Amino acid sequence: MGFTCPAPSAAPARITLAHGGGGRMTQRLIDTVFRPAFTNAALDAAHDGAAFSAGGARLAFTTDSYVVRPLFFPGGNIGDLAVNGTVNDLAMCGARPVALSAAFLLEEGLHIGELEVVVASMRNAARAAGVSIVAGDTKVVEHGKGDGMFITTSGIGLVEYGEIAPRRVRPGDAVIVSGDLGAHGIAILSMRDGLDFDGAVASDTAPLWAPVSALLTAGIDLHCLRDLTRGGLASALNEIAVAAGVSMVIDETAIETAPAVCAACELLGLDPLYVANEGRFVAFVAADDLPRTLETLRRMRVSRHAALVGHVKKADPGVVTVRSRIGGSRVLDLLSGEQLPRIC
Amino acid sequence: MGFTCPAPSAAPARITLAHGGGGRMTQRLIDTVFRPAFTNAALDAAHDGAAFSAGGARLAFTTDSYVVRPLFFPGGNIGDLAVNGTVNDLAMCGARPVALSAAFLLEEGLHIGELEVVVASMRNAARAAGVSIVAGDTKVVEHGKGDGMFITTSGIGLVEYGEIAPRRVRPGDAVIVSGDLGAHGIAILSMRDGLDFDGAVASDTAPLWAPVSALLTAGIDLHCLRDLTRGGLASALNEIAVAAGVSMVIDETAIETAPAVCAACELLGLDPLYVANEGRFVAFVAADDLPRTLETLRRMRVSRHAALVGHVKKADPGVVTVRSRIGGSRVLDLLSGEQLPRIC
Repeated sequence: MGFTCPAPSAAPARITLAHGGGGRMTQRLIDTVFRPAFTNAALDAAHDGAAFSAGGARLAFTTDSYVVRPLFFPGGNIGDLAVNGTVNDLAMCGARPVALSAAFLLEEGLHIGELEVVVASMRNAARAAGVSIVAGDTKVVEHGKGDGMFITTSGIGLVEYGEIAPRRVRPGDAVIVSGDLGAHGIAILSMRDGLDFDGAVASDTAPLWAPVSALLTAGIDLHCLRDLTRGGLASALNEIAVAAGVSMVIDETAIETAPAVCAACELLGLDPLYVANEGRFVAFVAADDLPRTLETLRRMRVSRHAALVGHVKKADPGVVTVRSRIGGSRVLDLLSGEQLPRIC
Repeated sequence: MGFTCPAPSAAPARITLAHGGGGRMTQRLIDTVFRPAFTNAALDAAHDGAAFSAGGARLAFTTDSYVVRPLFFPGGNIGDLAVNGTVNDLAMCGARPVALSAAFLLEEGLHIGELEVVVASMRNAARAAGVSIVAGDTKVVEHGKGDGMFITTSGIGLVEYGEIAPRRVRPGDAVIVSGDLGAHGIAILSMRDGLDFDGAVASDTAPLWAPVSALLTAGIDLHCLRDLTRGGLASALNEIAVAAGVSMVIDETAIETAPAVCAACELLGLDPLYVANEGRFVAFVAADDLPRTLETLRRMRVSRHAALVGHVKKADPGVVTVRSRIGGSRVLDLLSGEQLPRIC
């Protein structure tokens, strides 16, 4: 028929798990393959969601695929993760979530009972976030061509306040983290490979629109927000430092980690600053707004442990430095590879 | 840790390929698992996309996962399919596509060169449809846990005219099909299992906003539109007949099928009315609007073979009857199983 598949390039580079890790390899794939092809102002803003106007409305739009393994874990399952994750990406744009879509990619042989549990969790998570799931799709692939269930959620939000984006981050800004770090990643790891840590660690998966909305309603000028998912706080700070052309200095002693998470990280040789969270975010505000920001966040359960963890600086654009517990200072780099595959 | 996976239900029903076929089993899964959990007005409209208002704008929102196998086929690849498919779901709501998202689910080991070809096709398809890809995501799963590449696209469109939906279909409406049927399904099958048909069949994948826009601009009151993807014309008509509470009588001799598609269907025992298309749609208009509808569609290349194929009736709600070439009459039922797995 005169039709052939495209020939692989001379150097047949292949996709590795590290391309999905949210670190340097993911960034390289985005910068070399996706961004040059799809270039446009909304995408180039390098934010969790795209912001644009349509029909007189200021909208935010975001999408994420969820491939977490196992499907069920302490504190949640792939369903509430998929809803909360997309709600949170909208919240990080300062957008009130108004509609979600859910596309299910099911492997032949999946128990329908498992699907029902996941769908019920999605319903509950959507209700908790005050958003409807208005569109969906279901595809099935042969046994062995998938892994139980993948879910892709997309979301539309309404932007009712000013711009919240990396380019608004300024030297002098306070860096605030909304709570303790690392619980989601450790909860997932605890289910894998027969690991059993001393003391239960449940995922922190939670919707984050309520605290963001409280900050906006309080009149705080949020410069930038980012949820601390794949790659953790370290990756979020690095991405924002590069996008904003600033540096950051972080105080490790100000960052909270639950004792069980800390113990698990030490056992596994993981740095909690790189471990994924699903209900935590970083906020950048002018120093003047710091007290009211902390006060507002600490009034809400999900962000009751909010803390100032560092400041934005001018020198060495793109560099994030952390002052460690023992007094030294190190550069907090992007991971080049994959720390925890399929964490979300 | 006191945590266990949910127990499978007493009768451990499992997902089968038929649940993804777009026929009766897909419908049952939607009706028993998804719709009861996610119920809301937009979802309950049972349309290709959800329509709702936000911030004063009338929006349409849709999502689809693409799992087509093979990734590359005559006439296109998974990339342009994913863009055109979502553009078309918006067009079927009468919505001008304004923004797309793309979530990539890659299998470890995929050639990055293949990804680049797919991404370039997506860029070209988006340009042809006048829409930007503004948000994206990349996840990677281990070799053997995926199948090369799955893509989920979601889309936002602006609804600038009146409602286009199944519930507006009325007895007396003309049923118009925009062109010849079955090319996409046969193009995919020609690549599988070493089949080689006499004469090339290329997929009909194409964006459909231009013909829909032309009809709206011409002032034609479109009652309902539906693109003829998974499950083909037969499934689209059945879904709409049920949703609208009407019946339909279709004249098989009015339906065009290319000779090579016809020959392939005969060889494989397939009914072209059930074969997937990716650039064809059915339109329902009042009888008075029929001449102008056909005239407008036939002026555009993608719909130059538009034809009246039947009428909407009042008796026997939900039943679609086809008058065959040899004069007999048969009920055109929903397929209960899966005719062509992973066709899109």
